[in-house]
Amino acid sequence: MSALTIREAAPRDLEAIIRLHEEDELGSHGDAWTPETKPAYEAAFAAIAASPENSLFVALDGDEVVGTFQLTFIPSLTSRGALRVKVESVKVKAARRSGGIGAQMMAFAEQEAQRRGARMLELTSNKTRKDAHRFYERLGFACSHEGFKKKF
Amino acid sequence: MSALTIREAAPRDLEAIIRLHEEDELGSHGDAWTPETKPAYEAAFAAIAASPENSLFVALDGDEVVGTFQLTFIPSLTSRGALRVKVESVKVKAARRSGGIGAQMMAFAEQEAQRRGARMLELTSNKTRKDAHRFYERLGFACSHEGFKKKF
Repeated sequence: MSALTIREAAPRDLEAIIRLHEEDELGSHGDAWTPETKPAYEAAFAAIAASPENSLFVALDGDEVVGTFQLTFIPSLTSRGALRVKVESVKVKAARRSGGIGAQMMAFAEQEAQRRGARMLELTSNKTRKDAHRFYERLGFACSHEGFKKKF
Repeated sequence: MSALTIREAAPRDLEAIIRLHEEDELGSHGDAWTPETKPAYEAAFAAIAASPENSLFVALDGDEVVGTFQLTFIPSLTSRGALRVKVESVKVKAARRSGGIGAQMMAFAEQEAQRRGARMLELTSNKTRKDAHRFYERLGFACSHEGFKKKF
């Protein structure tokens, strides 16, 4: 592949980002880009863009969006007041998986976290995503926690 | 116990909050309230207070701080742009555990999340905290995810 570019997402990337979410049936989040859902995605995109503590990124191969992830910087008292970073909504285009895109995105996330003074990256991954878990452990993540969710 | 009060933490609560963290050896976060660590906690407290997306709470029995937790409101594209809430740094005073304080704090967290329009609560808990996991499952949380951390 050509060199991957990772940059903050712009409004023009939104449809391509949601198309990556659409490919993911496992998450069961019901994501799809339609005239009905578009306003909710646009509102969420605007909320992320307006937040100093959130950044949404895209990975591009040439002009094609092939990956995305979000970083949330969380000030915290734990660990002597350490800033922590949550990695959220990590997606790689289905046809391009196992090609190193995820690893480049995570390396970028780690650099960005360190640049902003954070001392930890964290993320949760659905228990059924065994390949993803091996991937994160190869990158030096410890699978030390259980992840709980409660939907309303 | 007398009726529990849950409110946003004020600067005067900071030492009592960190004393709750101190009691927790399992987390291995090295938290302790000392002249050396105080400035870092004060800076983190100020960062949380300044963030519209973070709120730190204390649970009080009379004047005594018996519990604490933090909520982080995270705008997200996933699930059609759903706002999610991360519950972080949940601590109950050791001598007061199993007395319903945690359940009252989580009920408050859920109300607060719903009041602000969120559609999900999430949290991670160290895999060794089996009692906490049963507690969260009783409250309707699904243990659906693995939680990964990478410290720098």
